Amino acid sequence: MTTQEVADKLVKLCSAGKFEEATKELYSPDIVSMEAGAPPGGSRESKGIAAVKAKGEWWSANHEVHAVTVKGPLVAGAHFAVTMKLDVTFKPQSKRFTMEEVCVYKVADGKIVYEEFFYNM
Amino acid sequence: MTTQEVADKLVKLCSAGKFEEATKELYSPDIVSMEAGAPPGGSRESKGIAAVKAKGEWWSANHEVHAVTVKGPLVAGAHFAVTMKLDVTFKPQSKRFTMEEVCVYKVADGKIVYEEFFYNM
Repeated sequence: MTTQEVADKLVKLCSAGKFEEATKELYSPDIVSMEAGAPPGGSRESKGIAAVKAKGEWWSANHEVHAVTVKGPLVAGAHFAVTMKLDVTFKPQSKRFTMEEVCVYKVADGKIVYEEFFYNM
Repeated sequence: MTTQEVADKLVKLCSAGKFEEATKELYSPDIVSMEAGAPPGGSRESKGIAAVKAKGEWWSANHEVHAVTVKGPLVAGAHFAVTMKLDVTFKPQSKRFTMEEVCVYKVADGKIVYEEFFYNM
């Protein structure tokens, strides 16, 4: 798949809330995922598909998603950007909030090999 | 200015090739600028408006710009992304090439305080 094709598929799956399917279908085994900030005692960076899937599973288990809006993609060579706006409830605290982020991805050999999220902490 | 207004103005100025004017009008004195890779012996990061202007002046002095295409912006909270495609000649080598990049910006108090460029080296 080209960068554009990977980007279009990611937008389609994430817009439908299918984050785990997106990871499974589009991510390289060697994915590196970079958050805007580190969790307490943790790292901004997750390396490898197992770590990235674990991060996604934690997120899914702890958040109820009410709505997702994905805009883009903007594609440039091997990279693309989208924005995501999520209306979610953090289940352990029953706290509903909206998060907005710019997401940047790098594609190699038809798979996403790097992602980075930009949002205010 | 809101993030959207800063983003729209950046797109307008850069589309017209007015990169120096964009820096002057929209950048914070405390801007941090991050390239995808470091130049030989240098750093990926430029800190402060003087360093960022110097980088821009070196770039302008060494490249002839034939065409600029800016797409976006995609805005999410304090951040936004655009893509830029530049058709340029690197003057010291008379070498014409096209470069494509995803550009991410962070806005605080109506000024751009952080920028990062994603492209393959």
